[in-house]
Amino acid sequence: MGITEKIIIDTEKIRKEGKNLEGKQVTIRGWVWIKRSSGKIRFLVIRDGKGFIQCVIENPDLFSTFDEISQESTCEVQGLLKEDKRSPLGFEILVQNLKILFKTEDYPITPKEHGIDFLMDHRHLWIRSRKQFAILRIRHSVKNYIREFLHKEGFIEFDSPIFTPSACEGTTTLFEVDYFGEKMYLSQSGQLYQEAGALAFSKVYCFGPTFRAERSKTRRHLIEFWMVEPEVAFATLEDIINIAENMISYTIQKIIENNYYELQLLERNVDNLRKITPPFYRIRYSEAVEILKSKGLEFNFGDDFGSPEESAISESFDKPVVITHYPKNIKPFYMKIDPENQNFVLNMDIIAPEGYGEIVGGSQREDNYEILLQRMKEENIPIQDYQWYLDLRKYGSAIHSGFGLGIERFVAWICKLEHVREAIPFPRMLYRYRP
Amino acid sequence: MGITEKIIIDTEKIRKEGKNLEGKQVTIRGWVWIKRSSGKIRFLVIRDGKGFIQCVIENPDLFSTFDEISQESTCEVQGLLKEDKRSPLGFEILVQNLKILFKTEDYPITPKEHGIDFLMDHRHLWIRSRKQFAILRIRHSVKNYIREFLHKEGFIEFDSPIFTPSACEGTTTLFEVDYFGEKMYLSQSGQLYQEAGALAFSKVYCFGPTFRAERSKTRRHLIEFWMVEPEVAFATLEDIINIAENMISYTIQKIIENNYYELQLLERNVDNLRKITPPFYRIRYSEAVEILKSKGLEFNFGDDFGSPEESAISESFDKPVVITHYPKNIKPFYMKIDPENQNFVLNMDIIAPEGYGEIVGGSQREDNYEILLQRMKEENIPIQDYQWYLDLRKYGSAIHSGFGLGIERFVAWICKLEHVREAIPFPRMLYRYRP
Repeated sequence: MGITEKIIIDTEKIRKEGKNLEGKQVTIRGWVWIKRSSGKIRFLVIRDGKGFIQCVIENPDLFSTFDEISQESTCEVQGLLKEDKRSPLGFEILVQNLKILFKTEDYPITPKEHGIDFLMDHRHLWIRSRKQFAILRIRHSVKNYIREFLHKEGFIEFDSPIFTPSACEGTTTLFEVDYFGEKMYLSQSGQLYQEAGALAFSKVYCFGPTFRAERSKTRRHLIEFWMVEPEVAFATLEDIINIAENMISYTIQKIIENNYYELQLLERNVDNLRKITPPFYRIRYSEAVEILKSKGLEFNFGDDFGSPEESAISESFDKPVVITHYPKNIKPFYMKIDPENQNFVLNMDIIAPEGYGEIVGGSQREDNYEILLQRMKEENIPIQDYQWYLDLRKYGSAIHSGFGLGIERFVAWICKLEHVREAIPFPRMLYRYRP
Repeated sequence: MGITEKIIIDTEKIRKEGKNLEGKQVTIRGWVWIKRSSGKIRFLVIRDGKGFIQCVIENPDLFSTFDEISQESTCEVQGLLKEDKRSPLGFEILVQNLKILFKTEDYPITPKEHGIDFLMDHRHLWIRSRKQFAILRIRHSVKNYIREFLHKEGFIEFDSPIFTPSACEGTTTLFEVDYFGEKMYLSQSGQLYQEAGALAFSKVYCFGPTFRAERSKTRRHLIEFWMVEPEVAFATLEDIINIAENMISYTIQKIIENNYYELQLLERNVDNLRKITPPFYRIRYSEAVEILKSKGLEFNFGDDFGSPEESAISESFDKPVVITHYPKNIKPFYMKIDPENQNFVLNMDIIAPEGYGEIVGGSQREDNYEILLQRMKEENIPIQDYQWYLDLRKYGSAIHSGFGLGIERFVAWICKLEHVREAIPFPRMLYRYRP
């Protein structure tokens, strides 16, 4: 009854190469997800970290081991691979050998419904569940395809620092750290450093955690979240919109192609995602305001859009909509002023469909030293702390543009989640910072 | 004299496809790196973010523009591509058109020698220099090939949080943050969370910034550095050594293959790197102590190795050396005790050759609930804060192992740098946190 064949395969391999393995003996190691009996047959659904597979036990000699086993017990299963068209994986195992490696008792997350606080308290175990498993594997792929796209386009990864010595947009949403007696802050965006990178390496991006000490409790906000921020020398607003559009479309189409299994586990309607191809819709801020008014919403021209406005605008579109040319007064100092109308800036936000709100913010950057200095003075930014940033307009200045895309919102949209908290392994929110 | 051809190519394309472009007209955009005259010929070396290319100006009509141009002026150059065997790029441009896009005056980093403090103060510009350019492009590739290796091996990226609610190895080297009234700390390692990930996804890694508030000023330490931390379910110490060895070797061989241009700019002796193939040397702690004694160094059995010991040990080897089975007392609570000798743990450090010290630390993890609980109590670890971590031994426990590799030390070794501070775009050190 010992397990002789020690070549372990996994369900990912079965998913990809199952056709060649059919009828052959395979061994997998994993954990019991579901256990049930039906007449003279016993069933185990095993998760092995790469997927879920049904294991069918017909041999009564194995029933005593089956009886001993429980949810989340660690085990090794050997058997014959057989096609199973009903399962998303496409295969099942007819068990010949079953060995318990570790016995689990009273696993806290049972098939019954649990409250969100309970699940969040058990996040270290909850990630094993089918839905969380699928989401976090898609998150991995999203990050990977974004990088793949950027590398094909000639970008290099250029890490912005997390510790930043000063705060250009006010300190109210910044986390402060005592850095050997100096006040330092955790980065809210790597953009300014990416601009230095773009003028040195032409096309750069950073991709790391960012921090906002916002006391907001919406389903779109996290305190700690990941952002990819590409920045490109010699690129105009138009160029950077094209890059963002292509990056988003590339990633989504790759996910449909290569993460179909996970999308099936999530029961995601893939048709809505297939539509996500360039070009996206493009409107100006002024046109977006018209849309809001046509829908009867009260809105003052010149204000910024919040979640309700973003949702209302995006309802009109089945693809992301790129909104450009916002009023200068509601946007940061580094955005380039529209040469055709000094009240607006050359910026863009991309609003996702299906109510997922803003996923991208970007702009052409001010490349003129005097204008930038003037705008910084107007906004009381400590010039001395930003002399290095001004230097970029003094030495080898060039037209350049960039944007940031928040990963958790992007993943939440792709997976159609209620809340971004499930789009990251260990979410950090206003009242949630454990485990 | 206008520039008509608007298809811009870059030196990376020239490097890769130059043979097909020879004799053709090309346009590049970039910055003046070096300017010089020789008789009736003028020379510009242009950097375009992807490399450096010599541009030869023989047409006297272009000399007035040449005279106007200065180091770091932004420009567009059009001309015929010609082979140039003396340059690392392999090609030069015979200039037909030259346009200044932005005029730079008094660029602070001149070809003369500058002190390190001056250069660090101008890090936002220093990254444009040939050596820094080469290092940071190699850094990009190192990160990329590490991920490529891990993805081929079936790993998924599973982000550990930066904000961690408690400190398992004492708070003296931790940065504390006020998190809406709660004390939180910046992560020193994502390992514990990766263990939860491994039991959910089988093979995971995190790859992000980590923070150590160490008051050390050595050439091997940064306050903020990037670390890749793979963790694998069902893997023994032996398995994880193999993965680390293969990951390091794969990355270095890929760098030699694809970043030869950058290695040439650094004048790196590639022969030493070619040797880096598996298996590495493997010795136990006790054997390493013997080596130290044979070299006449004073060392107490049971102490940990510092930089001098690591250097002395690695001198005996032309490849990395894996040191295993350290005394339990000098290693953290989560390492699995050697079943054959309770005074030692199933851990490993990998010491790089050429004096670069420890680049990897890893171990098999304690997978037994009772033993782990006991060790945590012995070390006065607040059990309540780590109940989630203990849970991993209660529910679906499995043999598992992992390691961490510090990127800046790895890059410093590959590039043969004096100091890790050049291996990251914006280094954070004890007295260095600007720009």
